[in-house]
Amino acid sequence: MELKKKTSASPAVLHQGEFWFTELHAPGTGITFRVRRVLHWARTPFQELALVETEDMGRALFLDGTVQFTERDEFFYHEMLVHVPLCIHPRPRRVLIVGGGDGGCVREALRHPEVEEVTLVEIDGEVVDACRKHIPSVSSKLDDPRVRVLIEDGVAFLKRNRGTFDVIIVDSTDPVGMASPLTQAPFFRTAREALTPQGLYVAQSQGPIFDGREIGRIARAARKVFRHARHFMAPTPTYPGGLWTYLLAARGPKDPAGLRPRPLPRGERTRYYSAEVHRAAFVLPPFVRDFLP
Amino acid sequence: MELKKKTSASPAVLHQGEFWFTELHAPGTGITFRVRRVLHWARTPFQELALVETEDMGRALFLDGTVQFTERDEFFYHEMLVHVPLCIHPRPRRVLIVGGGDGGCVREALRHPEVEEVTLVEIDGEVVDACRKHIPSVSSKLDDPRVRVLIEDGVAFLKRNRGTFDVIIVDSTDPVGMASPLTQAPFFRTAREALTPQGLYVAQSQGPIFDGREIGRIARAARKVFRHARHFMAPTPTYPGGLWTYLLAARGPKDPAGLRPRPLPRGERTRYYSAEVHRAAFVLPPFVRDFLP
Repeated sequence: MELKKKTSASPAVLHQGEFWFTELHAPGTGITFRVRRVLHWARTPFQELALVETEDMGRALFLDGTVQFTERDEFFYHEMLVHVPLCIHPRPRRVLIVGGGDGGCVREALRHPEVEEVTLVEIDGEVVDACRKHIPSVSSKLDDPRVRVLIEDGVAFLKRNRGTFDVIIVDSTDPVGMASPLTQAPFFRTAREALTPQGLYVAQSQGPIFDGREIGRIARAARKVFRHARHFMAPTPTYPGGLWTYLLAARGPKDPAGLRPRPLPRGERTRYYSAEVHRAAFVLPPFVRDFLP
Repeated sequence: MELKKKTSASPAVLHQGEFWFTELHAPGTGITFRVRRVLHWARTPFQELALVETEDMGRALFLDGTVQFTERDEFFYHEMLVHVPLCIHPRPRRVLIVGGGDGGCVREALRHPEVEEVTLVEIDGEVVDACRKHIPSVSSKLDDPRVRVLIEDGVAFLKRNRGTFDVIIVDSTDPVGMASPLTQAPFFRTAREALTPQGLYVAQSQGPIFDGREIGRIARAARKVFRHARHFMAPTPTYPGGLWTYLLAARGPKDPAGLRPRPLPRGERTRYYSAEVHRAAFVLPPFVRDFLP
């Protein structure tokens, strides 16, 4: 399966063709990567899973033909999804991650010394296994003693665990197919009930370039359930449009967008997140505000 | 040259193939667009110019195979390049745009009632002509009575016009080939001399995902010449990595990053820019700060 790089200097190269992965973000617009090597390719009971080594972006996980992350730019997404809620929660001891079987959110959550337990509930065990084997830069903390990995449906799990979690992070695929219920009011109610009274809920919430209406729909559903449901924004180069939004909602009475972030412990270097970036991320440009209710 | 959309319902379609434009941002990573129609294609004395109608992104200008803008996302770039300096200059009467033959910066500059004259100096007259003809949404203000369009070399023009401009906006192609001198200290000196004492200089300054070292190089060159040389950042989905930086430098003693932006006149709706977005744009994440001197 390995594809040799074509070089004019070497007449011994046998494979002249090249393997490119292209994800369309709209009918005629997409991102394209040269694939050096396919590390794992499977049709699981839930989705098509491809774990590849790209030419420029490091290793990458694709589910049903959409980029979940590349090693080169996953830090934007994982840092923002995790540190925004964890830096404003007064005492985030118990963290639940729904989805996120690659381990990227787990890795970031464990950087907070306040966190005593991280529960990862991933429906597709093959994602966990493949990432454990092939992308240790993202998955390596899945074996930390503070982490519990459960392979099951997140909705059923939440229903059994009321009032349990200080922070719930939903790191799901796009809201189509099996991930579709995760952006609707009934799920938000289930999640709210699983939070402690000061609990925070955060989830990826699509990009404003190609899916602005989805952002609006998600915001309306969240506002039916949570007292405060805010959006923040950050770049993610390999996601559609390169720009992504996140939903942050609070069970309690305080607006989470107004809370001052606690600094990460000394020595915990982040690449995108900082306390200043945190505050700036809640400044939404007019065209994004226009999608919101 | 028009390419019909392939539909299984219509046996009369003759053109089954499709025309895709792909720009590589790194050896194995790129962006790709389906092209419905090529409106203008020419090798000018300076560059290869292609003006096309894309499937999703509206019309688009490519120079030497790199996206200059698409109608769908040009607002990020043109609004930030123009409104950041114009909203903090105390009285921006005379504005110079170097490059920018498409007219996007001119259009934005004219939204400021303080602006009495906009001079556009574009080296390649065919860019102006093609955009005038095919992309009126961007170019239409080139015929405003406050605008002077000169087809000549920007460096020579600046040398003849000392102490003349309140704001100089460099809207150039990437710093390779003919645009390469525009990001070096000798050019910055020439530009500084063409500014009025409180003058501001702004230029696109490459993206941190694939060209971080270039950002650092540009910052070091600018700091040799200007008392204050700052960077700000904004998304631009169709530029490499989807995230772009801009250099803002001041001839005078005040740090331009600390100045409070004046609101745009009532009724001037922007899509990305706002006073809050302006301030947030100067918050640079750690991985970008690491590139700067």
